Amino acid sequence: MSTQSHPSDPVLVEILRGDLVESRHRGAAAIVDSAGAIVASWGDIERPVFARSAIKPLQALPLVESGAAERYRLGATELALACASHHGEKSHVEAVGRWLDRVDLGPDDLQCGSHLPNDVPSAHALIHAGEKPSALHSNCSGKHTGFLTTARHLGETTRGYVEPDHPVQRRVAQALGEMCGIDLAHAPRGTDGCGIPVIGIPLAAMARGMARMADPSGLPAERAAAATRLLAAMAERPLMVDGTGGFATVVMQIAGAKACIKPGAEGVFCGALPALGYGVALKIDDGAGRAAEIAMGGILERLGVLSDVEREKLEGLLRPEIKNVAGRVVGGMRPAATLLD
Amino acid sequence: MSTQSHPSDPVLVEILRGDLVESRHRGAAAIVDSAGAIVASWGDIERPVFARSAIKPLQALPLVESGAAERYRLGATELALACASHHGEKSHVEAVGRWLDRVDLGPDDLQCGSHLPNDVPSAHALIHAGEKPSALHSNCSGKHTGFLTTARHLGETTRGYVEPDHPVQRRVAQALGEMCGIDLAHAPRGTDGCGIPVIGIPLAAMARGMARMADPSGLPAERAAAATRLLAAMAERPLMVDGTGGFATVVMQIAGAKACIKPGAEGVFCGALPALGYGVALKIDDGAGRAAEIAMGGILERLGVLSDVEREKLEGLLRPEIKNVAGRVVGGMRPAATLLD
Repeated sequence: MSTQSHPSDPVLVEILRGDLVESRHRGAAAIVDSAGAIVASWGDIERPVFARSAIKPLQALPLVESGAAERYRLGATELALACASHHGEKSHVEAVGRWLDRVDLGPDDLQCGSHLPNDVPSAHALIHAGEKPSALHSNCSGKHTGFLTTARHLGETTRGYVEPDHPVQRRVAQALGEMCGIDLAHAPRGTDGCGIPVIGIPLAAMARGMARMADPSGLPAERAAAATRLLAAMAERPLMVDGTGGFATVVMQIAGAKACIKPGAEGVFCGALPALGYGVALKIDDGAGRAAEIAMGGILERLGVLSDVEREKLEGLLRPEIKNVAGRVVGGMRPAATLLD
Repeated sequence: MSTQSHPSDPVLVEILRGDLVESRHRGAAAIVDSAGAIVASWGDIERPVFARSAIKPLQALPLVESGAAERYRLGATELALACASHHGEKSHVEAVGRWLDRVDLGPDDLQCGSHLPNDVPSAHALIHAGEKPSALHSNCSGKHTGFLTTARHLGETTRGYVEPDHPVQRRVAQALGEMCGIDLAHAPRGTDGCGIPVIGIPLAAMARGMARMADPSGLPAERAAAATRLLAAMAERPLMVDGTGGFATVVMQIAGAKACIKPGAEGVFCGALPALGYGVALKIDDGAGRAAEIAMGGILERLGVLSDVEREKLEGLLRPEIKNVAGRVVGGMRPAATLLD
């Protein structure tokens, strides 16, 4: 691929230090309703973006609508984990382990690879004990267990379930295309950090897919039920979706089912807002997760999703302070005015 | 400070995944000679930028020109550490500890704060042993020991040496203003991660300061000698400047004194190129260190600083692959064509 000139998206997030805006994050964002109407947008929302983990709730639809979730009696914990980038804490690892047991599989069946837990105390505990992380610690182990569960339920081979032509990934791609309302046959492709395919989707379409999760009234009955059940699971078990102190977890712990939000790598953040029937999709151009969080927080504020009390409780996440190593406040982060106006 | 519209800098670095440029880093960069003439530039090089750790070689000038380095018989190891953001490896921690001994001070005199070593195996070794990092592990402990050494030499109190009005910081600010050729009296200020003042300096001026390190022919004799000695120390002890596998260390291990380069937080990178007499200063707008490295590599390539053999040896740093968790190559990073043309 050749280097192309790329139109400039607006600054969405500012990083402050002393007298200066020290760094600036540009990006694009779309707020869309379930009919696909744009409620608000910033930057180029029509170019394809890899959503990475931000669309895990959409990727989990086949797990529920196939009947696999019912057959294996999956509860809110498992469904939240299917939509999760968890932090590899004890509660996550044990829950994924029990779920794999229930479908007669084990950690060796996971093809997501292993990495140290994103939760720092959990990572330090492993290192202190001289232990290596297993595939259960991977932030994607819940999503992958969901994939394996669907394959088991439908009598498909579990080997190669991460490959684009495996029935598991074909179903996921079909659900994505239907929910986002676009033909993905010729969409750009790649491979995610956990080995599954990524498919380039414009933010406007991605937000529409999330809006249809939030307002499933126009969906076929089985899909509508699956969407409702997955969002309810995320809101009921926010700790399973992300981790202790994580932005998405804390927002859902405080705001509940109004803000079912999910971050992805390289600065993507998606949300389904059932109270409004809206979907949100944003991508920070440079891939920074810190900015994706601040931008999502700004959009939730703009839309009035958060009450004053909730906003106050979330202040430390919405306008984080930057401290130096010795603990003194030396700066902060904030959404740019354009997000809030 | 109010949110201001910010003119768009060009894309300097591209992050690739599958069929897409997944993320883009914009930034500004200046290549300048010692007279201040612009050799090449990208984006806005006149707005003030906090250089962070990228100008440590300039901040170390008073240590040498005051006579402190000679009095305490500092060698290449100590002078390289004074210019360093080291990784807290055993060799760094021990060398800073010995240096503090030599000036009758200890780790408690350092005001940089403590953090886990940036070197992952060193951090894991501490965690495994159940030990806490000390101020010696701070990536800035060498710079701070340099500050303390100058204060000792000149009979100043060492307490509060990080404060803007302490003689140590006044000397540093004066050297910066003289080398960069600008009046910093009304420059924007802030506090660095290690507690010392940061001063906003335009990239054009910052690059000129580095150019005067590279080509000190126009400087007063003592300063010229100090500049030459500091760059020689960096080139002689590249492991002390950064750390095992670190971008600056590896580039200097392979290219030697031709490329005395130093990264700073929030996407800043500076370099003194003695063979050409040029200085380089760049800032990635969004603060990403990964992009600052690729951009600096692109500029070294553009200027022909690296021989073909050196370029080949550095391929893994100049055009890094991105692997997924399981180890498969799924993307990469590269300088944008505008940097190389």
